[in-house]
Amino acid sequence: MWKALDVAEWKERRRADLAGVREAVAGIVEAVDQDGDEALYALTKKFDRIELEDLAVAPEEFEAAYDEVDEALVDALADAEANIRRFHELQRNRSLWLEEVEPGVVLGVKTTPLDRVGAYVPGGRAAYPSTALMTTVPAQVAGVEEICVCSPPPIHPLTLVALDLAGVDECYRIGGAQAIAAMALGTETIDPVQKIVGPGNVFVTAAKMMLRDHAEIDFPAGPSEIGVLADTSADPVFVAADVLAQAEHDPHAGCVLVTTDPTLPARVGAEIRRQLETAERREIIEAALKNSGYVVAADFDEAVVAMDEIAPEHLSIQVADPMAALNAVHHAGSIFVGPYTAVAFGDYASGTNHVLPTAGYARTYSGLDIHHFCKTSSVQMLSREGAEALGDIVESLATAEGLHAHANSVRLRRQRRK
Amino acid sequence: MWKALDVAEWKERRRADLAGVREAVAGIVEAVDQDGDEALYALTKKFDRIELEDLAVAPEEFEAAYDEVDEALVDALADAEANIRRFHELQRNRSLWLEEVEPGVVLGVKTTPLDRVGAYVPGGRAAYPSTALMTTVPAQVAGVEEICVCSPPPIHPLTLVALDLAGVDECYRIGGAQAIAAMALGTETIDPVQKIVGPGNVFVTAAKMMLRDHAEIDFPAGPSEIGVLADTSADPVFVAADVLAQAEHDPHAGCVLVTTDPTLPARVGAEIRRQLETAERREIIEAALKNSGYVVAADFDEAVVAMDEIAPEHLSIQVADPMAALNAVHHAGSIFVGPYTAVAFGDYASGTNHVLPTAGYARTYSGLDIHHFCKTSSVQMLSREGAEALGDIVESLATAEGLHAHANSVRLRRQRRK
Repeated sequence: MWKALDVAEWKERRRADLAGVREAVAGIVEAVDQDGDEALYALTKKFDRIELEDLAVAPEEFEAAYDEVDEALVDALADAEANIRRFHELQRNRSLWLEEVEPGVVLGVKTTPLDRVGAYVPGGRAAYPSTALMTTVPAQVAGVEEICVCSPPPIHPLTLVALDLAGVDECYRIGGAQAIAAMALGTETIDPVQKIVGPGNVFVTAAKMMLRDHAEIDFPAGPSEIGVLADTSADPVFVAADVLAQAEHDPHAGCVLVTTDPTLPARVGAEIRRQLETAERREIIEAALKNSGYVVAADFDEAVVAMDEIAPEHLSIQVADPMAALNAVHHAGSIFVGPYTAVAFGDYASGTNHVLPTAGYARTYSGLDIHHFCKTSSVQMLSREGAEALGDIVESLATAEGLHAHANSVRLRRQRRK
Repeated sequence: MWKALDVAEWKERRRADLAGVREAVAGIVEAVDQDGDEALYALTKKFDRIELEDLAVAPEEFEAAYDEVDEALVDALADAEANIRRFHELQRNRSLWLEEVEPGVVLGVKTTPLDRVGAYVPGGRAAYPSTALMTTVPAQVAGVEEICVCSPPPIHPLTLVALDLAGVDECYRIGGAQAIAAMALGTETIDPVQKIVGPGNVFVTAAKMMLRDHAEIDFPAGPSEIGVLADTSADPVFVAADVLAQAEHDPHAGCVLVTTDPTLPARVGAEIRRQLETAERREIIEAALKNSGYVVAADFDEAVVAMDEIAPEHLSIQVADPMAALNAVHHAGSIFVGPYTAVAFGDYASGTNHVLPTAGYARTYSGLDIHHFCKTSSVQMLSREGAEALGDIVESLATAEGLHAHANSVRLRRQRRK
């Protein structure tokens, strides 16, 4: 159950095989494209076994949701919302910066939000109010005016409360590939969005990948992962607790310990078995532990290389010199430093985002942040002096590239008498 | 030729129809996937009519390229390279920031470069040394270690000089969809890349879109565009010169003037006809002008709304209060402010990037910048005190979401006696 891992094999196994669902998803996408809302009602009846009366959640339903939720939970959600907002506000760039790089040549960047985005919040059997916050609050902080949420029915009251706390009121009870198709293509009820963010199952992910010509996505994401980078200073109780927390997400979750201490895997293994005895989601955890294991590295550098190969969704650093490790690693969705920084803090409370790339995609993609909801325009502003200073470069290169009207557009400026 | 435009129709027409080439591109991708290098040699013979001896450009070929290029041109390229580097260096973020958001809770972001990226540089009949700089220099500034360039044969000496000036030595003489397939999937000679950037024809764009499961891309891009936002203060000579410069790129280029001055379109039209008389790429320009025209807006606000609808690749601001216009517009690839800021300066000399989203994609995507070559990891570091402060939120929300091991991972930390 808790065994030595081969990193290459791990990498191979983590990429979700979307091929198996691609045909089914293509059929769903086509149905939504052809029949719009009608297809959404039919597919929801088929897959969620619910006959919807309305796609959109009505304003009074948000109100009513509070009555079904414990007050302490509303407070916890409100705290989480405030912390997520706080962290994402720290990511803001100046909306416009300009700098005179040489006399008469002012360059800069203007940052603007997307107009309309879609957030997918998983649901169905479970409630994910935290994901409702993680997908919508960064969009708000970025300045996005229209945020459209889809979540499979029945939508849990906690999720509605979370959306209401965030100040999001456009929410449709549709899940799966049909929700992605509706947001990407638009229907009678749902206006199309520019970008779709948020986690989902293989159907959701396959639909997101398939519809990127219509709506951009955050990144492909699959089952959750933790990588623990540890030495002799690590506490096996904490390491085991974080492993179990990751494993309880999903039978396909993956946990890997990379350590320079050859005695640590056995100590963590024993602690995993002990904590497993009282775990409530024991079957899921045991299934996930089959995808999990450890790597013993000869030294710190080798451990870092192995962890960078893995590029885990969550990286827990449990070593004597954590700042050195933080500086050394390159690839991870989110990094948790030191014994008290349980990964669960990032999932719920610290304000960092839990929508993160998995399966090694952290090598290429950033976790969800406000930059996913912004785009930039470069800006240039030349005076006559600046145009004169840069004129020769343009005239000479444009002529070499055979673009004579380019050269002429600069020549005309230079010839103009003041 | 120079006529009133309907903005909705313009938007409709700008999106390139990739459907027509999709089958051909899928065949090319499959061939490269199956036969690797062999397919590259065969496809280059078929499409470029060149029998390659080697895919890779040898080190001595870069050296030799200087002998075939005018010295003044090398200087202009070196100046352009330095200016592009200067502007992109201004975009750098701190590689790690950490902030204590409350006692014991330190949050931050670590920024790291991608490991290996691909740059597509168009070529064939023409030389695009400027695009060689625009695609590779930002990657270098971001810290990318491996930059792989593909360009169709024969590669012009100017392009090789540009790559050498930038310090890029991995270059393959392959073009079209087969180049994108080779970089996304890898062959015996070419290692796969994480992301492919750079402009290309519809085959290149279709291949980039098709292979996004394997390699991320910058954004879809099509024929070049200019939008000029102008009032009575605009100089028709300069406006016409910038329109012609854009139009000479491609028969499918598009130029639109949005103005509050109803007399300006005719004055610009007359100036276009005058400048066209001596234009060297007259046929291309005349074809592009058929896709072009003007919009007369009732007032400034209406003009800004129309221009935001268009979201042009290049936006030229030619109004009496340019800073107000710069602040008001939302969507443009790159913004050129004032009479002396010819768009051609951004194409070659000022240092801003000319690889930009077209066809309204500026609503969703940023032009190429160093952030395309970076990704981030969020960081969190909690002390015992910080864990205590955030503990209740996690325990309460994790329990509500049914994730008991998450709650336990925090509870164990809080219970630990110092």
